[in-house]
Formats: sequence, C-alpha cells, structure tokens
Amino acid sequence: MYKSIFVVCLLAISTTILNAQIERVEPAFWWVGMKNPKLQLLIHGKDISKNQVSISYPGVKIIKVNKVENPNYLFVDLTIDSKTAKAGKLNISLKQNGRTEATYTYELKKRKAGSANRQGFTSSDVVYLLMPDRFANGDPTNDNVASQPEKANRTIDYGRHGGDIKGIEDHLDYIKQLGATAIWSTPLLENNYTQYTYHGYAISDFYKIDPRYGSNDDFAKLVAAGHQKGLKTIMDMVSNHGGIGAWWMKDLPMTDWIHQWPTFTRSNHKAITTKDIHTAQCDLKLDQEGWFDTTMPDMNQNNPYFWTYYIQNNIWWIEFADLDGIRMDTYPYNDRNAMAKWAKAILEEYPHFNLVGETWQHSSEDIAFWQKDAVNSLHYNSYLPTPMDFVMNDALSTCFNEQGNGWNEQGMNKLYNTIAKDYLFANPNNLFIFAENHDTQRYNNTLKGDLDKYKMAMSFLMTTRGIPQIYYGTEIGMTGDKNKGDGDIRRDFPGGWAGDSINAFIPQGRTQFQKSYYDFTSKLLNWRKSKEVIHTGKLLHYVPENDIYVYFRYNDKETIMVILNNNDNEQNLKTDRFVEGIKSHQEGTDVITGTKYLLANTITLPKKSALILELK
Amino acid sequence: MYKSIFVVCLLAISTTILNAQIERVEPAFWWVGMKNPKLQLLIHGKDISKNQVSISYPGVKIIKVNKVENPNYLFVDLTIDSKTAKAGKLNISLKQNGRTEATYTYELKKRKAGSANRQGFTSSDVVYLLMPDRFANGDPTNDNVASQPEKANRTIDYGRHGGDIKGIEDHLDYIKQLGATAIWSTPLLENNYTQYTYHGYAISDFYKIDPRYGSNDDFAKLVAAGHQKGLKTIMDMVSNHGGIGAWWMKDLPMTDWIHQWPTFTRSNHKAITTKDIHTAQCDLKLDQEGWFDTTMPDMNQNNPYFWTYYIQNNIWWIEFADLDGIRMDTYPYNDRNAMAKWAKAILEEYPHFNLVGETWQHSSEDIAFWQKDAVNSLHYNSYLPTPMDFVMNDALSTCFNEQGNGWNEQGMNKLYNTIAKDYLFANPNNLFIFAENHDTQRYNNTLKGDLDKYKMAMSFLMTTRGIPQIYYGTEIGMTGDKNKGDGDIRRDFPGGWAGDSINAFIPQGRTQFQKSYYDFTSKLLNWRKSKEVIHTGKLLHYVPENDIYVYFRYNDKETIMVILNNNDNEQNLKTDRFVEGIKSHQEGTDVITGTKYLLANTITLPKKSALILELK
Repeated sequence: MYKSIFVVCLLAISTTILNAQIERVEPAFWWVGMKNPKLQLLIHGKDISKNQVSISYPGVKIIKVNKVENPNYLFVDLTIDSKTAKAGKLNISLKQNGRTEATYTYELKKRKAGSANRQGFTSSDVVYLLMPDRFANGDPTNDNVASQPEKANRTIDYGRHGGDIKGIEDHLDYIKQLGATAIWSTPLLENNYTQYTYHGYAISDFYKIDPRYGSNDDFAKLVAAGHQKGLKTIMDMVSNHGGIGAWWMKDLPMTDWIHQWPTFTRSNHKAITTKDIHTAQCDLKLDQEGWFDTTMPDMNQNNPYFWTYYIQNNIWWIEFADLDGIRMDTYPYNDRNAMAKWAKAILEEYPHFNLVGETWQHSSEDIAFWQKDAVNSLHYNSYLPTPMDFVMNDALSTCFNEQGNGWNEQGMNKLYNTIAKDYLFANPNNLFIFAENHDTQRYNNTLKGDLDKYKMAMSFLMTTRGIPQIYYGTEIGMTGDKNKGDGDIRRDFPGGWAGDSINAFIPQGRTQFQKSYYDFTSKLLNWRKSKEVIHTGKLLHYVPENDIYVYFRYNDKETIMVILNNNDNEQNLKTDRFVEGIKSHQEGTDVITGTKYLLANTITLPKKSALILELK
Repeated sequence: MYKSIFVVCLLAISTTILNAQIERVEPAFWWVGMKNPKLQLLIHGKDISKNQVSISYPGVKIIKVNKVENPNYLFVDLTIDSKTAKAGKLNISLKQNGRTEATYTYELKKRKAGSANRQGFTSSDVVYLLMPDRFANGDPTNDNVASQPEKANRTIDYGRHGGDIKGIEDHLDYIKQLGATAIWSTPLLENNYTQYTYHGYAISDFYKIDPRYGSNDDFAKLVAAGHQKGLKTIMDMVSNHGGIGAWWMKDLPMTDWIHQWPTFTRSNHKAITTKDIHTAQCDLKLDQEGWFDTTMPDMNQNNPYFWTYYIQNNIWWIEFADLDGIRMDTYPYNDRNAMAKWAKAILEEYPHFNLVGETWQHSSEDIAFWQKDAVNSLHYNSYLPTPMDFVMNDALSTCFNEQGNGWNEQGMNKLYNTIAKDYLFANPNNLFIFAENHDTQRYNNTLKGDLDKYKMAMSFLMTTRGIPQIYYGTEIGMTGDKNKGDGDIRRDFPGGWAGDSINAFIPQGRTQFQKSYYDFTSKLLNWRKSKEVIHTGKLLHYVPENDIYVYFRYNDKETIMVILNNNDNEQNLKTDRFVEGIKSHQEGTDVITGTKYLLANTITLPKKSALILELK
C-alpha cells in the first residue's frame, strides 16, 4: 500500500509553474466518498490572492474563494459530491484577467475499503506509549538531516538521540509479544527548531513527519505493519499550540491565526476559568490565549480558517496513515467549543474511531466533564470518547506506598474511592488509565523498585474498567527520576541502539531483574488479550477492609475475582462477605501462578500481593 | 401567642377514657387550611387496633384506618378539606361492636396569617450556632427533672451543664447586637437516656422539647421573642436516627420502623455507595441501615408510616413554633429518595422556607449533588435548597496557615479554587458556609489564636457568596481542642452561668482579648446586615497572584472590593489587573477602619490582612 501512496504524493505536488508561484496546497490531496462533502484548500504563494481560481471536474465545485488579510493566501471552499465525483486528478487554475497564471494538479483518491467504519482502540486494548526518539534507532542515516537544525547528541538528556520509525517497526514483534495491542508514539510530526525538539510537541508542520523519524510514507508503512501483527496505532496530535519554527510563523495567513501578545505571555494554566461562573475575563483570556511556552505559539481555534485547516489535517492523517486513534495533547487548554466541533467532525466521518484527550486535571468531575455525552451543569458535550483518568493516576501514584484503614482515604481506599465516582462518567469503561506517562515520575521510581507493588499495580490496571496504557521500559523495570528533569524519565530503551551493552528487546538479552518484570507483564497482558470479561464485563467492588480491595469483573460467561492485599504482612481474608460476587463458584485459579484457591472460608494472601482468580 | 397555645395543648390531650386506653395521638393537633389535605394520625394504646374509628366533623373524612404489625397502633388516614373544614375540636371515637370504647378530642387550629408564605433564612442572614446546654443557664430549676435520668454535672465535659431555652432568650439582645440575624440551636428535643445526652442528637420524642431546656411552649415563645428582635430560628432535626430511649423503642409499631440487625451493627459511613454504580449491595445496606451509634437506632425512611409521621412532625414544628428554617442532621446517611420527598413536602407547604442539610462530604460535586435542581448524572433532585459547604470548610481549615503560590493549591488558591467550582451548583448563593461548627476543631484553635487570621476569615465569610454561619463563643476568641474530645469544643459560654468569673455577654464584662474579637465581629456583621450587594450581588473574582485574593461583589447600585493578603509581610498590590471589577471607581473606603484608598496604581496591604472596600 505504501508504495502507491508514495508515487501519488509525488504526483500530487507536481505544479505547472507559470507566473504565479503556488508554494503549498493543503491538504496535499483528498479522497472521494467522504461523508462531509466540504473541503477547504489552503493555497500559499506570493501574492496568490490576486488570482481567480477555477476547477473543472465532474462533481467538484468551488463554493467560495476566500481572500484573507495576507495576500499570499487563498482559502478555497470546495464541495466534492459523493455520487458524481470519481477518484482522479483535477486541475486548479489560477487566472488573472483571463490569463492562466498557474495550474495545480490535485488528486482525489479512492478511500480504503471499510475506512469509514474503522474500529478505533477500545477497552479490549492495552496501549504501549513510547517516545520515538528514545525507543530504538533503526536508521542511523536519518539522525541528522540538513533541513533540521538540531542534530543528534546522545550525551544530552534533552537532546535528540536518534530513535525513529524504523526503530519502532523493527520492534513491533517485541510489543506484540509483550501483549500490548496498540501503540501510542509521542508526536512524530516535524519540530523544526534549534533545541529541545526531541519531545515533539512544538510542531512546525502539521502535514509532515519529522525527517529524523522518517517520511510520511514510512509512518503509513509502520501503521500497516502494525495492523498485520494486530497492533493499532494512536497518533499524538497537538491543536493547542504549534511550534515557533512552523512554516506559517514566517508568513501568517492573518494576525489572529495564532493568539498574539505584545510580549511573550505565558498561559496561567487555569483551566477552571473556562467553567468558573465568577471568572475575571482577563484570567480566562490568559488561560485560553496565553502561550504554553516560548517555543509554542498558541493557536486560535476560534479562527474558522485555522480550525477547518486543523480538523481536515486530523482527518487526512486518519485516512492517509490508516490510524486507529488520535491522542490530543493539552486538551483542556484548547477552546472547548472548538474541540467539540473537532471531535464531532471526526466521529461523523468515523463513528467507531477513538480520540483520547490529555485531560490533566485532578477531580473526577473535571475529567467527567470532558467525556462525550456527560451530564453536567453547563450542558456541554465534548464529543470526546476517551478522557485520560488523571484522578486514577493520582491514586496510583501513592496508594501502594500507603497504608489504608477504615477512616483514611489512603491505600486501597484511594482506588475504591476513584472507581466509586464512576457514576459521574458517561462511559467509565472508555477512560484511559495509566500509572505513568512521559510527563510523570517513572512508576518504578514511585514504587522504589518494589516488584511486588509493581505486580499489584499492573494487576489492577489490567483488570479494572477502562483502557490501560503502559509506558515503554517499565515492563523491564526501567527507572528514571522526574526530579532530575524530563530527560531522566525518557531514557533510551536498552538495546535500541547499536552497541548497547544490554538488549532487553530479546529474552536472552535481559538481566534477571528485567526478566522478572517482563515475564510477569507479558503473562498478564497476553492473558488479558482474549478476556472479554475484562474488556466489557461488569464491575462489582467492595469497600476495602483492612486495606484489602476486592472486586469482580463478570459477564454471562465468566467471573474474575481480583484481590489486592496492600498490607506489609500476610492476611487471611474471610470470603463470606463477597457472596454477591462469588455466587455459587467454588474455586478460583490465579491467572499468573495457576494456583487454585477454594473460595469457602478464608484465602491466605501474601504481603503486598494481587490475586486474579478465574472462578469456576 | 404562646399563652393560647399552652391552653390549647391542654385541651388537645384531654381524652375521655373509657375501655380503650389511648396513650398517644400524634400529631397532637393540626391546622385547617394546609395545602396538603392529608393527615395520618398515629394512635397508640394497648390493643387499640381492635377498634373501629369514626369521626363526624364537617370537612374531615377518614380515608383509611391502617392496622399494622403491632396491635397497639392504628394509623388513621384523614383528609381535611381546606374549604369546608373550620378550626375547632372534633371527636375521634373508638368503637367495638358498636360500643364506644374511647373518645379523643382533637383540635384543628387556625393557621397564623401568612404562615404558608413565611420567608426562610437566606443569604441576607448570618446564622449563630449555639449548643443550648452550653450557652446559658437561664433557669437552674430545670437542670434536673424527674423524667430524665441524666442529671446536670458541670464538672464533666460530656455531661449536662444546665443551659436552656431561657438562657438563649435572656441573650437574644447579645446575639442581635453582635449582628447575627438567625439562631441555629443544636437539637432541643428530648434525649431521654442515661448519659451523653447534652449533644441532643439521640432524640427520644420527636414531638417534645427536652424538659431540661423547657417546654414546647417555651420554645415557641423563644422563637416569637426572636422574631420581635429580627432574629430567625432554625430548628435542628434528625431523621436518620432516633434515640435508644425513644418511647416507641419500647413498643415498635412494626419491626421495620427502624433498621434491625442481629447484633449491633455500625454504619460504614460510606455515603458514596448510594451513588456508586459498582457497589456491592452489602456495603450499600451497611451504609444505609447500619446504626450511627449504639444509642442511635437507624430509622427506616422507606417505611411509609414512619416517613409520613416524620414529615408531618417537621411541618408541625414549623407551624407550631413559627420556624424560619430546619437544619437536618447527617443528611447523606438518609435514604435520598425519602429525603427528596421530605423536602418537597415541606416546600410545597412553605415555598419560601429554607432547609439546610449536614452534607459532610469533601468534594464539590458531592455537595452540589444534594442541592435542589442540581444537574447530575443520576438525574436526582433532592429539593434541598441549602447544602452545607464542607468543601469551603475544608479550605478555611487550612488556607490561612499556608502559603499559596502560582502552582500549589494552598493558601488563597484554596478559596479561589473552591469558589471557581460554583458552576457545579444550582444555586451557590444558597450554600451554608462556615469555618467551624460544634463537630469540628474550634476555629481559634485552628488559627492558633491569631486575630489577624481571624479577621481575614470572617471578612471572607461575610463577603463571599452563601449563607454564613458562626459558632457561639468564637466571636469572643473562645478556644477548645477537638483532639481533647468534643466536650472541649463545646465549652460553656463565659457569663452564661450564675457565678461565672467572666461575663462576656456584656461589654464591661469582656477582657481586652475578648473585646478585640467581639468588636471586630460585631462591626462586620452589623455592616453586612443592610448590604444587599453582599446578600444578592454578583461575584467576580481573580486568580490569586502572590497569595493575594481579590474579588468583587456588585449590583446595579454598589460595588465592594475585597482584598485578602495571606502573606506574612506587607505587599503592594498593583490595581490595573482589576479594572473589570473597579470599573470607573476612584476610591474605596474600608468598612472596618474607615480608611480611604485610592484605586489608581497600588494599594499597600499589611501582612495577613483583609480590606473590604466600598467603592465610589
């Protein structure tokens, strides 16, 4: 598939250069048969707005040619009739006084079969989050490229280390064998700037994979290879801000394409102002329009040209790269009505697709507010299927290091209390759950390298409701301290670089320590893969007593009983309280050890341990 | 007024005793002209259910005579037609085989003019909470009464100290001069038990003032005397539990009048189970039906006889004692659908009345859930106009002892964050706000006796949205440590007992220390009394910067600017950021000191200080 795309790309950018200079048309191509017949083309070129635009192609009509503040832009509104327009190439002609100044050959492609009905990632998946610069360097020849000023330097923790798309592709089998079923890579789009570009969140071209990772086609090829192995791909996107090195920053279509300030003005990061009925307008403006960082101009989602451009961009990537999901960065910092429009537009094209927002807030009602179809006092519908459950993340960040009791809200009470607030959510099983990500403390640091606690946390994450996400390297016990800087929580995966002294990608390369983490994780995740009762079963849980948390996942066919003993010593758990969950079952088999437990009377629980029992 | 009630009471309980023994009819009397024409009489007497019941009175009909599990009870359903039934006395006849066994003279009274339209307490009020046993002993002759086993003993901190209704009545002028406009006394109803009865929450007779406080008529007289001085009365009620010494505990109408357990079973106090979609039923049952304490049998609000009895009881007290409000104890521990029925029934009789629930929970969404007309995912409407804002209480319990900054959630950020969640509430201005009550740490202990912090807290409470409540004695700097036991936070008010060495009720009796607290408080509260802009004005607030919180209350006529400097040193506040609140005003006058401040440029703020500026 990727080959044909590559050829088509070359065709799509072939322009007959006459007097007018068309430097850029975006989206570079489109498809016939989209549900939304509208398309707005951004055309960029010196004094391009002087021209008249015409197209002659069956089923394609120009509705309006929009001239804007900057004469170097035209925004051309088209409709592409789904019945009469066929895949093919059409000419866009730019004329002045009847004379053709330029012609641009634009391709309308045929959609992949079933594209509209693609199934996005769901609670049946386990998402593997990686940072492409730090995972594996599959192609050292692209570590440095002429067009990008920052060069690779593995000695700097905030520098570029050379990881790339080829590195991911080379290790799809590793991810598959681990038992993950979806990959979320932090942004792969171009970050054309002088430093700190490895994190990828200062995007300079929304339509271009960073050449140090590979090409657009390499990315499409990666997704296709993943699909062949049963791995979905979630693309990391940013709409709140662009990168200071973005091509359009040198020639803005209009002043308010971005939010402008007399001098650099940072956001107050007070997302609450958007819901606060008493807020001062200056605080709200600072939250919404302040910049995330000096290198990240704040995009204006209320600019209709930008927002159409951005939504089309996301749809283009879904269709072009055959995506299974989008992860949206800094979600609550965006204009929320614009975000609703974004999600709605994507879900109208792809009703079963999934979008996950980085809803980094700390109360359940704040997270719930962002989920599609939530009931809330502002009558707001985000249309976002999957918020990130940062409240659960907060709970996981401390609970295994604490001792809960009947009255405090620590230890297992924290997990219980978080789950007990599920009534606030339109769909708790669609929440994205995680113990860590690329912005938080490394979880093995949080747990101080305690494997027992790690097993408890993973057992919980893989059996409670929601869509679990893990972070590259944790499965081999990797550590890293956020207090030392973000670089330390984003260390290179051992074995990803030629010459690495340890190669944890292969069984024989792992240390005993790495093996103890990997083997447990792999067993658990591979067990989860086929467990419909975990993917979609109901949840029944019990108020923790003596810091032991017990819950059940069940459906018509199966019942799983999970027991988390958060005590530092062995406990005997009386089972009579759990009759509603146990029902008439007599015996449970632990999915990790295979040990059988009789459910009558008591179960002996080792200190700091998890049991995942399949009941029969 | 109280005299005629007294006479009528005597008449109402006159029973012609024949063969059947009517020991109790409740409610003891009722009124004509109630909106709800239905009344259910509880009749209690040995084997009373053998009798037929008849009434012959214009406009009054027996709809149904309900016999229940215990033959000593009858529940008689009446309708009282609002058009044809006149005030007067009617005979209830009990007959067997045509022979009259007993006759009971029941009075239907005329309602007080305007009763239905009474205005409950609102955000124009400041509520003064007192514990009647600990406020003032106005009548030492009732310290010990024959019918009540626990006798007065001032040397025990959990014993009865002798305070009473007369003591409150004697000091209405004190409360009025302080500037409070409403009194909430902890329960005055009978607690007929051997010990710990001073707190009042183990009620043994829902229809009877504890004789150690006075009589029902004394209470009605107190309310009337308060009204003459512009003081409203909020009666403290308990529906979740009764007292172990309750008269009906000796002869339950039916097994499920209360929640029964094989052995004493305490509630798990997990109110979240009532909303938790994953809850185990045994946890929910324990929350709802477990007992609050050994001396507090859990009432069954799903028993229709009990619930009708209880709702009528509350309406009876409103009408009899001319109440301005009800405070409902342990609100979330009740069955929530029953509570909605309770509040709805009361508000249907008295549309402008107010009910405040002890919603002791710790997240804004939990508090919001309990407010009338809240939007929530369970589509629940409590009909409760006023939840207690325990989240604000949490914030106040720490914020003045902390230092906030741009990123933490401490100090003034806590107040800001709490107010910023007002979008969750159907009516934030109806929230009950307080820094302490009879169950929490004494606020002067929290503040470690720092008068500056006290002034900041009171300035905030008296100028933000909501209905502020203060706790007796705090206004003279009283302390008391919850860690030493509840008795210590419920000390006797100095001057309330004959022979007290200090009498803080009178200006000349106060120490300099007490005077410094009282004078500030009195000035602030008396200023608030007439300030419609505080009662109902809009609120505009700003993200705290440098731990200084600035907000405005404003309406068409007035603007108040409040500045809280939570720093331990003097600060110069630039005013340009606050132009949305200041508008074209030039000058502000502090309501406490009278000092004038120019609003241009900067305002110098002393360390740990509050300014309440009236702008002009």
